[in-house]
Amino acid sequence: MEVFIEPIGRLINEFSKLPGVGKKTAQRYAYRVVQMPEDEVSAFAEALMGVKHKVKYCQVCGNYSTTDVCEVCRTRDKSVVCVVKEPKDVVAFERLHEYKGVYHVLHGVISPMDGIGPNDIRIKELIARLDGTVKEVIMATNPDVEGEATAMYIAKLIKPFEVMVTRLAHGIPIGSELEYADQVTLSRALSERKEL
Amino acid sequence: MEVFIEPIGRLINEFSKLPGVGKKTAQRYAYRVVQMPEDEVSAFAEALMGVKHKVKYCQVCGNYSTTDVCEVCRTRDKSVVCVVKEPKDVVAFERLHEYKGVYHVLHGVISPMDGIGPNDIRIKELIARLDGTVKEVIMATNPDVEGEATAMYIAKLIKPFEVMVTRLAHGIPIGSELEYADQVTLSRALSERKEL
Repeated sequence: MEVFIEPIGRLINEFSKLPGVGKKTAQRYAYRVVQMPEDEVSAFAEALMGVKHKVKYCQVCGNYSTTDVCEVCRTRDKSVVCVVKEPKDVVAFERLHEYKGVYHVLHGVISPMDGIGPNDIRIKELIARLDGTVKEVIMATNPDVEGEATAMYIAKLIKPFEVMVTRLAHGIPIGSELEYADQVTLSRALSERKEL
Repeated sequence: MEVFIEPIGRLINEFSKLPGVGKKTAQRYAYRVVQMPEDEVSAFAEALMGVKHKVKYCQVCGNYSTTDVCEVCRTRDKSVVCVVKEPKDVVAFERLHEYKGVYHVLHGVISPMDGIGPNDIRIKELIARLDGTVKEVIMATNPDVEGEATAMYIAKLIKPFEVMVTRLAHGIPIGSELEYADQVTLSRALSERKEL
């Protein structure tokens, strides 16, 4: 005999596909859903399908959008383009409510180990945007090996266009303690020290 | 401008309703769903609705079931009834693959503080099952104030039926260390010590 009846077991299985969700957590979620009123579960199911039916990629920046060209690309300062790896990186910047430029989502980074080359991510789409309106490209890929390599590669490609290419500053995070900073970060913070 | 586009924001909101899921976790889940293939998201949505459409309560034990009388009530030893607070407590026992009896789900415990009296939980349904086939009732409510009080209350009610009423043993959990046992548990383990 199965521990769970079929519909509950099936839902547990679906919840287990979410990132970081194990069998135990999936079970908690499923049992909560069983107790929810039907209209709430319907709303949940509709929201799930909604992201599949309504969300597409912005034709300009590649971020998720409900329209062909996203609101950011339609309304903001096109002279600054912030290049990120994934749509969720855009969310991190938007949370600041400070950045006024637009984005370019690469949908990946160059990673020979995983067989991802320059043509597998949205680099040529970025180059195509450099038609004179763009004055600065901010490389905001992650500060890991692939992110750094991708930033360097793109910076080289952009050079002939006479566009300023910048990179996010690396160093000690604000509010952290020097004692706990990893060696690479600390060494980077030291070599990129600034005059006060 | 919103940080999330509407369909994604809506799904984040739905995920936030799950137990222990904050905005950040809900966002991770939603971004995973956006990347899932459409048939997988459909399966997820159907599984959600499935638990609402297919799951009902077993008319005998009150556990979740896809049939009027659940498989446990139809196939197992009816002489032993294990009384639990919630359907998920049944799962804990079923995982043992050891218990051969049936269950009775109270759907709550007596809690005057929350305005839950004996008539608000499935106690009279339990009494109605004591028609001679039941030889033992195991009180397996949680070892907290409400769980203990409910066990005592039901034990008293059952007394006239000449059915054995037992309670799960309380004491030091297996594999734990005495040093970290809480005082109430240790004191209970001491007073209920057994001869070897």
